[in-house]
Amino acid sequence: MFQTFDDTADPTLGIERARRLREELKRRGLDGFLIPRADEHQGEYVPPHAERLRWLTGFSGSAGMAIVLLDKAAIFVDGRYTLQVRAQVDVATFQPHHLVEEPPARWIEQNLAKGARLAYDSWLHTVDAVARYKVAAEKAGATLVAVDGNPLDAVWVDQPEPPAAPVTPHPIGFAGEPAAEKIGRLTSALMSDDVDAAILTMPDSIAWAFNIRGADVPHTPLPLSFAILHEDGTADLFIDERKVGPDVRAHLAPVARLHPREALGHALNELGAKKATVLIDPATCAAWIHDRLKAAGAEVKRGSDPCELPKACKNEAEIKGTRAAHLRDGRALTKFLAWLGREAPKGGVDEIAAAKTLEAFRAETNELRDLSFDTISGAGANGAIVHYRVTTATNRPLERGELFLVDSGAQYLDGTTDVTRTVAIGEASPEQRDRFTRVLKGHIAIATARFPEGTSGAQLDAFARMALWKAGLDYDHGTGHGVGSYLSVHEGPQRISKLGTVPLRPGMIVSNEPGYYKTGAYGIRIENLLVVTPASMIDGGERPMLGFETLTLAPIDLNCVERALLTQEEADWLNAYHARVREALAPGLDAATAAWLEGATRAI
Amino acid sequence: MFQTFDDTADPTLGIERARRLREELKRRGLDGFLIPRADEHQGEYVPPHAERLRWLTGFSGSAGMAIVLLDKAAIFVDGRYTLQVRAQVDVATFQPHHLVEEPPARWIEQNLAKGARLAYDSWLHTVDAVARYKVAAEKAGATLVAVDGNPLDAVWVDQPEPPAAPVTPHPIGFAGEPAAEKIGRLTSALMSDDVDAAILTMPDSIAWAFNIRGADVPHTPLPLSFAILHEDGTADLFIDERKVGPDVRAHLAPVARLHPREALGHALNELGAKKATVLIDPATCAAWIHDRLKAAGAEVKRGSDPCELPKACKNEAEIKGTRAAHLRDGRALTKFLAWLGREAPKGGVDEIAAAKTLEAFRAETNELRDLSFDTISGAGANGAIVHYRVTTATNRPLERGELFLVDSGAQYLDGTTDVTRTVAIGEASPEQRDRFTRVLKGHIAIATARFPEGTSGAQLDAFARMALWKAGLDYDHGTGHGVGSYLSVHEGPQRISKLGTVPLRPGMIVSNEPGYYKTGAYGIRIENLLVVTPASMIDGGERPMLGFETLTLAPIDLNCVERALLTQEEADWLNAYHARVREALAPGLDAATAAWLEGATRAI
Repeated sequence: MFQTFDDTADPTLGIERARRLREELKRRGLDGFLIPRADEHQGEYVPPHAERLRWLTGFSGSAGMAIVLLDKAAIFVDGRYTLQVRAQVDVATFQPHHLVEEPPARWIEQNLAKGARLAYDSWLHTVDAVARYKVAAEKAGATLVAVDGNPLDAVWVDQPEPPAAPVTPHPIGFAGEPAAEKIGRLTSALMSDDVDAAILTMPDSIAWAFNIRGADVPHTPLPLSFAILHEDGTADLFIDERKVGPDVRAHLAPVARLHPREALGHALNELGAKKATVLIDPATCAAWIHDRLKAAGAEVKRGSDPCELPKACKNEAEIKGTRAAHLRDGRALTKFLAWLGREAPKGGVDEIAAAKTLEAFRAETNELRDLSFDTISGAGANGAIVHYRVTTATNRPLERGELFLVDSGAQYLDGTTDVTRTVAIGEASPEQRDRFTRVLKGHIAIATARFPEGTSGAQLDAFARMALWKAGLDYDHGTGHGVGSYLSVHEGPQRISKLGTVPLRPGMIVSNEPGYYKTGAYGIRIENLLVVTPASMIDGGERPMLGFETLTLAPIDLNCVERALLTQEEADWLNAYHARVREALAPGLDAATAAWLEGATRAI
Repeated sequence: MFQTFDDTADPTLGIERARRLREELKRRGLDGFLIPRADEHQGEYVPPHAERLRWLTGFSGSAGMAIVLLDKAAIFVDGRYTLQVRAQVDVATFQPHHLVEEPPARWIEQNLAKGARLAYDSWLHTVDAVARYKVAAEKAGATLVAVDGNPLDAVWVDQPEPPAAPVTPHPIGFAGEPAAEKIGRLTSALMSDDVDAAILTMPDSIAWAFNIRGADVPHTPLPLSFAILHEDGTADLFIDERKVGPDVRAHLAPVARLHPREALGHALNELGAKKATVLIDPATCAAWIHDRLKAAGAEVKRGSDPCELPKACKNEAEIKGTRAAHLRDGRALTKFLAWLGREAPKGGVDEIAAAKTLEAFRAETNELRDLSFDTISGAGANGAIVHYRVTTATNRPLERGELFLVDSGAQYLDGTTDVTRTVAIGEASPEQRDRFTRVLKGHIAIATARFPEGTSGAQLDAFARMALWKAGLDYDHGTGHGVGSYLSVHEGPQRISKLGTVPLRPGMIVSNEPGYYKTGAYGIRIENLLVVTPASMIDGGERPMLGFETLTLAPIDLNCVERALLTQEEADWLNAYHARVREALAPGLDAATAAWLEGATRAI
């Protein structure tokens, strides 16, 4: 299993751990310390040894920060986690605050004593974040100080070792472009931007650029490492050498000089000595790197990670791969949905059993490398919790008359999937059918959209909301996020959201996942992945138009669809999609599942 | 008539005028001069004495700039005017450039000689524009210098006098809120923003804040003037005293101290002497004002004109007024459309005759104060020119089998209108019906949209394009602009455009005008004005939703509608709109027009 359902939160541990951290701070002459939920790469998934916030406080969410002073401490989480933080954390020790509405900087300003020394680990914060905390500390008449050696690590006695999972070459058949060509493209771009070097700090950028994959964090095949691209066309890779076996060493030899991870500082010094102009991405680059470059004499230029946009635009091999991954994944999901249709109405299926069964069907493919995230398996009211993760403590049975929402995905060598289906256990109520159909109308509006070059996801987002808005309904998340190719299930810069102002380009993979959530009752989400298709002429049209190809192949529950709410065009789309799903999946299915699929994809 | 159709361009005049300007520059020891199409208020319409660019070059467009050096000169216009500039300007004297793609700053950098002194009139440029030209001049090793006394004015022997049209109080029945209350709201806001004073430089802001109107420029009832709001609740108005008769003097006495226009500099000096923090809007404030404030010792704070947002959100009286104005205007337009339906198919109607007849029907209301802009009256291929203005040189007959596009509006005391109708003379072709119906679908998508608070026009703009995009078509302008209340027909901050990121608020008036243009063939635009309705609950909904009320009342040509392309919901909207138009307008129409309207608004 690639997921667990244990309810590991024990809030009381935090009391003693905070005490030990404070002793360590006093020993070092410090008055406070910042503990972000972050590693050196600002990644969404972090390795176990970097789960410092979780170890200290018990909080297991994917974003947040604690501040421990000698006499008080606070924890900051966003709106997704306001309930969870109170369940997992001893709030007498760590006072909870809203990360956005009561930000850490304000708390620092209001709570730090004059003359106090507030410490931070400059590997774990971006330079912009440090700047904010510095201003706040100074307003309080205090000082923000970078420390060598994380004080929390000093008291975390059983802290795991940093991961050293073997790195593997990503086969050219899946990558589609040799690493040498990618490095060539990237370094030529540096030259034309008058940049001498770029620091890559995001492991998924490094994985993409060098055609390698790793296994250092859960759910994403990241090789934790750093790299430097030089305008002369060469590259340096800084990586724990235990991860690099002979095969990957041979693969990398033509494109990168290998160095131990610890040699990065020296390389930054060398760039400084040459007075080089060095590109960093301020959104993800650790302050440590920025500060070292500045101290060494380099000129720091801020800009997007140069891999971000080319990585987002998948090439033909990657698109072929993702189609194969979605076919395989669609069969596994369809087997699960058929099983669910048989078993759930009888009773006895709960959220954990459902998630385990779905994972088992994926594992049966023999191609499953990992899940792309912990499955969201939400029955009834749990379906309304957008970022729900089932544990033994929250596990609910799937009951007749309720909706069940399952959002899941897989990592295969040829592609990353992410799909949500919402199904009625037994019969859906008229209200549920109305809501489901409005969500479906939004989903279809995105799936069928055509749009000119230069159009951003921000311009399309409201297509998915139109039918809900007309009924006085909405959902409080974006409509879609970018997805990688056997890489991160959340990647930028593409997204369908009012904040997604980057134009969509051919080859970008993006999710299409409008939803509706009725707190305490049920949740609905219909999610397929899409790939942006090249600009093409439409019969009788004048301007080439981009569009989307739907990648995900799995039936959408017709028991939840209110036909009268669909236009003929929308019903045509649904019927054509279901015909495609049936024709694509049936050849690889057992007879019982194929028969079930026949009914599940009937024309309406 | 509030419009003329003369073809006044005589490009040859510019040769001699440039020569005389150069002599004046040499006399003053200057090497060049910037001539923007601007007055001291950066307004869309400028008074005749400020039409310097037009006098010098012959170019009559509403945006542009010339730069005259001693040995060469250039004129910069945007994409709307690339053809027009060649027809109106002697291009051997003034070399034409694209205002955006080849901006003036780059030309300055490339063409100014080392040591040259390039002059500008700091009343006619914003501070940001001056900063750009200054950098460009310095890159060329030259200097940008502000001059006292515009050198062009010195050689423009028959330059008109600045306008001195009488100012009138705007009746409270139309304004809806006493000026004293508005000034109170505005100055309280200054206080809570820690601003000591705000300079108002936009005459429409002044007109709104003090409940006055003027007649200094065409098509917009602007009282050209400046004002200062003080955080103590008082205000100063700087205005040519000849404009202020006893009635308006009495009206203003409780809310403003009156000063001659020339006293503004002294008042700015006083703010400086007090070290006041003074708000200016960098988008519209003349560099002269900014520079004077700085020199006097004031702290300049940049921000939006404080009247912009409150002015945009119309109150109940203003909305009642605009409904009355649209009823009156709809009858005039309907009489015109009935006349057009009778006369045009016989032949003998041309673009100018159509525009004159439409104006005459508006004048018949006895309430017409002005047109809100020069009527766009475009037959056949001329309809495809988005900013077309008919002259005797371009005038075309309305011919059978062609489309005729008429975009027009009126200024009434109770409201400003702006409406576009496209009608088939005789029969529309299948392609024209297809295009028209797609534009109509976009129009309906906006008209019927509901949306939560915080939604911007940028999020809605693509609703209007969806049906066109699906056919490989689009239009190259925004979907809607803000409209004032007996004020500017183009006002901010509201707009429906991918650039319109300000949230829409109740009471904002905005146009809904998707279009389609086939160069050399025909143009289609369907434009109604809308007012944003307050957030309200929808039956069965959960969140209050804003929406639009359509203000404009006039039939949409059913001869151009392809019923099969409309959904039932869209057809229902069209039929309900037409029923509303018929019921609202018929009571005030003659029998023949009412009979025509009956057919023009039949249910489909």
